[in-house]
Amino acid sequence: MTHDCSFLDDVGVAVSYTESDRQSHAADFGGEAFDLAVTPDAVVRPESTAEVSAVLSAATDRGVPVTPYAGGTSLEGNPVPAHQGISMDMMEMDAVLDVRPDDFQIDVEPGVIGSSINEAVEEHGLFFPPMPAANDIATIGGMIVNDASGMTTVKYGEVGDWVLELEVVLADGSVITTGSTAIKTSSGYNLLDLFVGSEGTLGVVTRATLELERLPEQTRGGRAIFPTLDAATEAVFDAVRSGVDVATIELIDDLSARMANAHLDTGLPDAPMVFLEFHSPGVETAVSRCRSAFERHDVDRFEIATDDERMDDLWTARRELAIALQTYDPDRRPLHPGDVTVPISEYPAIIRYAKSLAEEHDLLVPCFGHAGDGNVHYSVFVDHDDPEMVVRGEDVYRHIVEKAIDCGGTATGEHGVGLGKREYLTAEHGESGVEAMRRIKRALDPHDTLNPGKIFPETAEGERVREDEG
Amino acid sequence: MTHDCSFLDDVGVAVSYTESDRQSHAADFGGEAFDLAVTPDAVVRPESTAEVSAVLSAATDRGVPVTPYAGGTSLEGNPVPAHQGISMDMMEMDAVLDVRPDDFQIDVEPGVIGSSINEAVEEHGLFFPPMPAANDIATIGGMIVNDASGMTTVKYGEVGDWVLELEVVLADGSVITTGSTAIKTSSGYNLLDLFVGSEGTLGVVTRATLELERLPEQTRGGRAIFPTLDAATEAVFDAVRSGVDVATIELIDDLSARMANAHLDTGLPDAPMVFLEFHSPGVETAVSRCRSAFERHDVDRFEIATDDERMDDLWTARRELAIALQTYDPDRRPLHPGDVTVPISEYPAIIRYAKSLAEEHDLLVPCFGHAGDGNVHYSVFVDHDDPEMVVRGEDVYRHIVEKAIDCGGTATGEHGVGLGKREYLTAEHGESGVEAMRRIKRALDPHDTLNPGKIFPETAEGERVREDEG
Repeated sequence: MTHDCSFLDDVGVAVSYTESDRQSHAADFGGEAFDLAVTPDAVVRPESTAEVSAVLSAATDRGVPVTPYAGGTSLEGNPVPAHQGISMDMMEMDAVLDVRPDDFQIDVEPGVIGSSINEAVEEHGLFFPPMPAANDIATIGGMIVNDASGMTTVKYGEVGDWVLELEVVLADGSVITTGSTAIKTSSGYNLLDLFVGSEGTLGVVTRATLELERLPEQTRGGRAIFPTLDAATEAVFDAVRSGVDVATIELIDDLSARMANAHLDTGLPDAPMVFLEFHSPGVETAVSRCRSAFERHDVDRFEIATDDERMDDLWTARRELAIALQTYDPDRRPLHPGDVTVPISEYPAIIRYAKSLAEEHDLLVPCFGHAGDGNVHYSVFVDHDDPEMVVRGEDVYRHIVEKAIDCGGTATGEHGVGLGKREYLTAEHGESGVEAMRRIKRALDPHDTLNPGKIFPETAEGERVREDEG
Repeated sequence: MTHDCSFLDDVGVAVSYTESDRQSHAADFGGEAFDLAVTPDAVVRPESTAEVSAVLSAATDRGVPVTPYAGGTSLEGNPVPAHQGISMDMMEMDAVLDVRPDDFQIDVEPGVIGSSINEAVEEHGLFFPPMPAANDIATIGGMIVNDASGMTTVKYGEVGDWVLELEVVLADGSVITTGSTAIKTSSGYNLLDLFVGSEGTLGVVTRATLELERLPEQTRGGRAIFPTLDAATEAVFDAVRSGVDVATIELIDDLSARMANAHLDTGLPDAPMVFLEFHSPGVETAVSRCRSAFERHDVDRFEIATDDERMDDLWTARRELAIALQTYDPDRRPLHPGDVTVPISEYPAIIRYAKSLAEEHDLLVPCFGHAGDGNVHYSVFVDHDDPEMVVRGEDVYRHIVEKAIDCGGTATGEHGVGLGKREYLTAEHGESGVEAMRRIKRALDPHDTLNPGKIFPETAEGERVREDEG
C-alpha cells in the first residue's frame, strides 16, 4: 500500500521522491529474492537525532511505516521495505564523535563505515575486533541492528558484545540512552542487547559507544589444504575442541575451491582449504597446536606466512570467493545467500548433510564460512529460468536450515531474520518464544511503524499487526 | 498486604507456611536495610519446570505476587518480597543436567551453586570464567538474574556474557527457551539478555546452558603495596590503559588494609594494596608490564608468588576483608553494601571523591573492589543507634552513587537494583529509558506477579503497577 508522505516536507528533513532514490532503497545484497520487498514511497536522509525523532513521531501519528536503511549490505532483505512508506537512510549521520583511548572507547553515529572506525583509532594502537568481512562498505549501525559478526568472532565475539551504550529513537519519537560507558552494569533491564539485532523494528540507533581492544603485537596467517572435506571439518572441530587459540579459522569446501581456482587461476588443487589467523600472545604455541590438530586429520599442506605479502597470497582464494561464486556459471546463480550456525560438535555433520543433499538433488552447493563458530554459508546454484530446478534448490536450502535448528543451532548466525528467515522463527523459538517477542514489539512500537513485516511470520500476507487496529 | 496462598495446596508443589521458613526468605546479604522488605506468606520449593509453571499460572490468576529466591547472597534486597505473597525457593532444582566438553557447554538447573559448576567440568580441563567471589554459596540462577560478575570480569566479562541458552517460565506459566546452543545467533529478539539481570521480575529461569573456557595452563598471583591511595588507583588505571593482560586486579584502600590487619594481625603496613592474578598465555610478559606500570607510580612492594601456598598468603588480606569489615568496630557497622562502577579513566577520581566525602563527614568509608573494571565497593560505617550519623552516612552513600552516574558510570555494576538502588534508576536511564523498561515489564507480566516493587521507582509507596487495575 502506498502512503501519503507529503507531511515530510514540513518535518525539516532532507527528503527525496525520485525513482532512482526509491529503487536504490528497495534491495540489499540478498538480491531480488524476496517476494514481499517493495519500493518505498519516499527516502529521508536525517542529519541529527532530532530529525530522526521528528520523522518517527510524525510517521507514527499518521500510520506511515518507516524502515531504516544504511549500507545495504544485509542478505535477508532486512532494510528493504515490506510495506512501502518511508526509507530512512542513515548515511548522512556518519561522524566519529569522540575517541577515548584511555577507556578503549569510541562514540560514532550509525552511518560510519566499519573500516573508518579502525582508521580513527589505529593511531592509538586500538581496533574494533568483531568486524564483519564487508567492513569497508557496511555501517556500524547496520552491524549493530543485525548483530553482525565475522572472521574474528571465534576469538573476539559478535559486534553486539562490543557495544557499551546506544542512543535510540523509539517509534513515538522519544529518545533513550541505554547501556553505560562503564564496562559493566546491572542497572535495570538490558535494553541495549534488545536493540542489538532488532533489525530496526524496535527503534533507530542514532549513536553508539563501542569498546575497543589493543591491536595484537604479533599476528600470523596461514592456509591448510586437506585431502577430503570430512578431514577438513573434523580438523577444524578438533582444533576448536582442543582450545587452540585461533583468531580466524575459515573453511571453503572443494567445490568452493574449484570456483575460486576457476576465477583466479591459482594453480591450487580443487581441495578443501582452511584459512587461519593467530593473534598474540601465544602465537607460536597456537600455530604449533593447530598444526598438530590438523596433522591428526591428514592435512596435505600447512603453510604459515612469514610476511604480510605471503599472507595476502595464501588468503587469495578466500578473499576472492564471493566474486568467484557470482561469476562461475552464467546460467546458474545462487539462491538467496545467508548462513546457519550450529554447535561446533555438529559442524562436520551439517557440512556432510549439505553435501549429500546437493548430490541427491543434483545441484551445486558450495559451502564455506566462519568454521570455528560452527557457521556455514552455502549457495544453492540454480538456473533461475528453470522453475523445477528453483523448487529443488529451495528444498535443499530449507532442509539445511531445518537441520541446523534440529541440532541445536540457529537459522541465522549473523545476518538476522529480515524477510528471508521469517518462516523459521517459530521452529527455532517456539510459539511462546515468538509470542514473547511480539509482546515486546507491541510494547515499544504499538502502531507497527518501524520496519513492519520483518522478523515475524505474519498472520496474513502483507498485513501489519497494529495494536490500535486490533 | 497478606495474600491467601491456600491454593498452593492444590498445585502439587512443596509448600511451607512456617515462621522460620518465611523469615529466612525475608532477607539477603544486604541485611535489614530496606524499609519495604517484608516476609512472604508462603514458601514454595518447586522441583521441576512444570511445578514452577503451575505456581506462576495459579498465582497470576489470583493476583498473588511471586518472588524467586535462591542463595540469598544478593546485596540490594533483590529476592526479598516487597509485597508478601509467595517466595519461590529454587534450591531444590540443583541438578547438573549435562556436560558437553567438546562444545564447552554445561546445562544446569538454577539452584546449582557456582563452585559445583567448576567441580563438574574440571575433569575436562574446563571452568566457568566469570564467577563472582561468593561462588561457594551463590547459585547460578541468582548470578544470571542479577548479571553478577567478579574478580575475573576484567579479563573474561560478566556472567551474562557466558550464558548461551535459558529456559524461562513467564508469569502466565508459559515456558520459553531463548538463545541458542550455537555460539552465535541473530535470530529474532535477544530475549536472553533481557532475562539476564531482570532480577526475577520478567520470568523464572529454570535451566541454563553456559559456555565454558579451558583452564589456563599457567597462572601467577601477586600483591603490590603502594605509598598512597592516589598512587595505587593511578597505577591500576595505567596498567589497564596500557593493555596489561590481567585476569584479576583488586584494590583495597589504606583504611580497608587497616581493618584487615586488625583482624588478621598480618604485620603488613596499613597501606593501599592491589591484588593480582595473571592467566596464560603471555603470563611473564603481563607480569613484567604490570610491574613497569606500577613502578611508574612508586609501588613500594611488588611480589609475585612462586607457588599456590605463597599466593594464598599474599591474598589473605583481600580474602578476609569481608569478615574484617564486619568485626572491626562493634559500635559502628556498615550501611547497605553494594557497588558503583565507572569508566576506568574516572576510577582514581571517584576513589578520591569517596575519601574526601568521608573526611568531610567524619566517617569511616573503606573502599575496595574489582578495580580493573572501574568497580568500587564501599562501606559507610555508622553507629546505627545515632540517627544523625545515619543521616550523614546516607548522604555520603548517595553522593557517591550520584557521582558515579554523573561521570558516565552506573549506580550498580554487579548487584542489580533490587530495593536498594531503585531511586537512582531514572537518573541513570532517563524518564524515557525507564518508561521503555516499564513497557516491557507490563508486556511480559501484565498483572505484576513477578517480584513486584523491585527495580522501578514506584509511583506510590507499596503500590503494585498492574495493567488490569489501570
